[in-house]
Amino acid sequence: MTLRIRVWNEYVHETRGDRVVVENYPDGIHRVIADGLTELLGDRATVSTATLREEEHGLSEEALAETDVLFWWGHIAHEEVSDEVVQRVVDRVHAGMGLVVLHSGHYSKVFKRLMGTTCSLKWRNDGERELVWTIAPQHPIAEGVPHPIQIPRQEMYGEFFDIPRPDEEIFLSTFEGGEVFRSGVAYERGLGRVFYFSPGDQEYPVYHHPDIRRVLANAAEWVAPRVELRTLTADEHPRDWFVG
Amino acid sequence: MTLRIRVWNEYVHETRGDRVVVENYPDGIHRVIADGLTELLGDRATVSTATLREEEHGLSEEALAETDVLFWWGHIAHEEVSDEVVQRVVDRVHAGMGLVVLHSGHYSKVFKRLMGTTCSLKWRNDGERELVWTIAPQHPIAEGVPHPIQIPRQEMYGEFFDIPRPDEEIFLSTFEGGEVFRSGVAYERGLGRVFYFSPGDQEYPVYHHPDIRRVLANAAEWVAPRVELRTLTADEHPRDWFVG
Amino acid sequence: MTLRIRVWNEYVHETRGDRVVVENYPDGIHRVIADGLTELLGDRATVSTATLREEEHGLSEEALAETDVLFWWGHIAHEEVSDEVVQRVVDRVHAGMGLVVLHSGHYSKVFKRLMGTTCSLKWRNDGERELVWTIAPQHPIAEGVPHPIQIPRQEMYGEFFDIPRPDEEIFLSTFEGGEVFRSGVAYERGLGRVFYFSPGDQEYPVYHHPDIRRVLANAAEWVAPRVELRTLTADEHPRDWFVG
Amino acid sequence: MTLRIRVWNEYVHETRGDRVVVENYPDGIHRVIADGLTELLGDRATVSTATLREEEHGLSEEALAETDVLFWWGHIAHEEVSDEVVQRVVDRVHAGMGLVVLHSGHYSKVFKRLMGTTCSLKWRNDGERELVWTIAPQHPIAEGVPHPIQIPRQEMYGEFFDIPRPDEEIFLSTFEGGEVFRSGVAYERGLGRVFYFSPGDQEYPVYHHPDIRRVLANAAEWVAPRVELRTLTADEHPRDWFVG
Repeated sequence: MTLRIRVWNEYVHETRGDRVVVENYPDGIHRVIADGLTELLGDRATVSTATLREEEHGLSEEALAETDVLFWWGHIAHEEVSDEVVQRVVDRVHAGMGLVVLHSGHYSKVFKRLMGTTCSLKWRNDGERELVWTIAPQHPIAEGVPHPIQIPRQEMYGEFFDIPRPDEEIFLSTFEGGEVFRSGVAYERGLGRVFYFSPGDQEYPVYHHPDIRRVLANAAEWVAPRVELRTLTADEHPRDWFVG
Repeated sequence: MTLRIRVWNEYVHETRGDRVVVENYPDGIHRVIADGLTELLGDRATVSTATLREEEHGLSEEALAETDVLFWWGHIAHEEVSDEVVQRVVDRVHAGMGLVVLHSGHYSKVFKRLMGTTCSLKWRNDGERELVWTIAPQHPIAEGVPHPIQIPRQEMYGEFFDIPRPDEEIFLSTFEGGEVFRSGVAYERGLGRVFYFSPGDQEYPVYHHPDIRRVLANAAEWVAPRVELRTLTADEHPRDWFVG
Repeated sequence: MTLRIRVWNEYVHETRGDRVVVENYPDGIHRVIADGLTELLGDRATVSTATLREEEHGLSEEALAETDVLFWWGHIAHEEVSDEVVQRVVDRVHAGMGLVVLHSGHYSKVFKRLMGTTCSLKWRNDGERELVWTIAPQHPIAEGVPHPIQIPRQEMYGEFFDIPRPDEEIFLSTFEGGEVFRSGVAYERGLGRVFYFSPGDQEYPVYHHPDIRRVLANAAEWVAPRVELRTLTADEHPRDWFVG
Repeated sequence: MTLRIRVWNEYVHETRGDRVVVENYPDGIHRVIADGLTELLGDRATVSTATLREEEHGLSEEALAETDVLFWWGHIAHEEVSDEVVQRVVDRVHAGMGLVVLHSGHYSKVFKRLMGTTCSLKWRNDGERELVWTIAPQHPIAEGVPHPIQIPRQEMYGEFFDIPRPDEEIFLSTFEGGEVFRSGVAYERGLGRVFYFSPGDQEYPVYHHPDIRRVLANAAEWVAPRVELRTLTADEHPRDWFVG
């Protein structure tokens, strides 16, 4: 069955003309991510996009009803995402939709709502080398990437990262400054899987990196729904909905 | 150091005169819980209470600043709890306050916000016997209670219970109908500990039960802050706050 | 790729003529389990068997090298399994082979070695009804079985079950006597997956039960190796072997 | 109640006169660890030692019966530890004794038996700087140490570290070469707690480092038995022993 992936991007850095961002992502970060997914998943997936300034942020009931896996990239406009759409996305995850949250999306309303913590972290943007080490070599998300993945220049994200104890830890990153970060962690929330992956600042061409593209493609397949996705009808209660 | 415990109760069943509830808890569920904690913890704790109809639900900034451990009982008025107070409680848990959520509090805004799931479950109120089995015999919360605790009459709470994978499971309950429930589960959220304990319907005198009182007293001490509790100042960012 | 499954059975109750066991499993427990797997997995799997009294218990280096998933049933002859074969099986799990341990196999040398605990539990054989509840409704091992699975007559296995905290809990069982048991739990050990499933005493026809057969077939596919299985050469060290 | 700590050291490097080891630890690694514990825990603990060449490795039934917390340091003589003593230590952990395994003790028979994995890792001894980051700032084991702890020169231990998914992760280390390691991880096995802490090679004066000494003292108190320690009598079965 074809996986219906939607890549959501805030799309603000690019449209307001931040020079280095536009150089890396002339058509938007979502475009580059979507292209990577299409390239690697081929006809196993159809990939569409959505952005903040579209009506309902491009995430109407109808759009979400046709989404199996949602990628989320946001940074400077988290507060502009409407609470209604946030609730809709969270509900859909609970019903089984997969969610991949990227980089500064750790501070998105959606991720914080699903985690129940502040999701704060340490950071420093000095264009340092990041190494992404696999600590779960048998995990499908780590398939086909070197140990470590080497990203020449990156923003540093460091511990303490205020997240719940992960259900699974797949990647740990180190930075030139010596910091460490839990850069690839997975959770279940309701019937849905959530994967957070930190590499990917707007100022560096991280989403062009072939190993990072591989991780994102692996992640899309791994968070894919394992149950038939459906929507609650008015007279249904979640307790009837999960199990008979 | 004396533990400052506050027992929050919705206090609606009792004040509107639900007969059986008033018989079990003439001065309110909070009063019986507080008495049990005082009896068992003695001068290791000071116990106060708060209820929904008080100003700011009895949970002003000042009140919370003097609370190390908060108990939460709610059932039919979850929606009346203001979002501002919910946020305040959640922030305080992130800063290290302990939280014990009881019975139908699984559907409280506070618990759902900390869990990130629907927290739905199955239920049936037929006054059935509940057995509470210890599956972590070395855990301080299970100290001094029989295996199983026997509650003669109870509302059934059953799986599927839509919660994140617990950090620790301490109790599992079974019911006369054959159902099972993860009735004692623990989480960390930020610097704070959260313990959910399901026994305790308003229609049965569960909080008078000596073993249940023992569990609540144990829980109060176990969720107690392990860091010095402080409040963010205006110019602090959580990432500075957690670790230096 | 066809999954190569091997069902190992102690095969002592049957061959010494325990009447009720012979009635339930005239050709051995392994035969009934293997038939169920063949029936449900069809050409996705080839199923063979091995038993204690065969040379090297039917688990020679060659036999294991052709095994992707091993089922393990044992009860009264755990001590007769040679330490050399135990080590071989454990090594193979570390290298990625899937292992499904059944019922009284909780006390097998193989399982205890992989768990690092006593694996003790409570039991009582009174032919009571067992209900097997799903607490991970999205898990592939639970796919297609009712909630709960009903087993008319069974030996009771109860808590405290002395196992490490499971990586995943899929099933909880309750019994007529009111006991509870973590009856379906999963672990990773090295590159391999381990699933323990408690239903299945020799005195009851549990492995003929269609829902139990479904769980076993699901489990076989779920524990299947996610990495290419290989064998260490003489000059390799495990640290070279796991990741490059 | 005074905590009875015993520090076990292989004590081979020192006694065969490895120059740099003797300079760092003239009276043995165990002596320096024991002194640190005595200094920091004062009259909350009594600290004794035991070494490989003593009768029964200094770990007779009587010695263990008077031990609440055991530290374990070994490196080049793991195979010389008798299986009988290993079983005795493992049994004692199951009964509730705390165990702190240090550095190359990851390959000890005791640790491998409790983990059920190969416990292999990557290493390189180039005297690199190690930074030990706290990822559980509320954890008692991390109390009072800087973030990060800085160790000027150390052997590198790196991922993949083949251990079961930890119950709790407290420290992550990074090295000058960019590697990462889960350097402080905790488990429960039976009624006992196990903490593995990797800093501490024999060639560097790591156990003289005040922050490392603080971690070891914290760890001793954290793994301390939470149940009354007792020994199985001949007619007891573990299932009677854990819970009544």
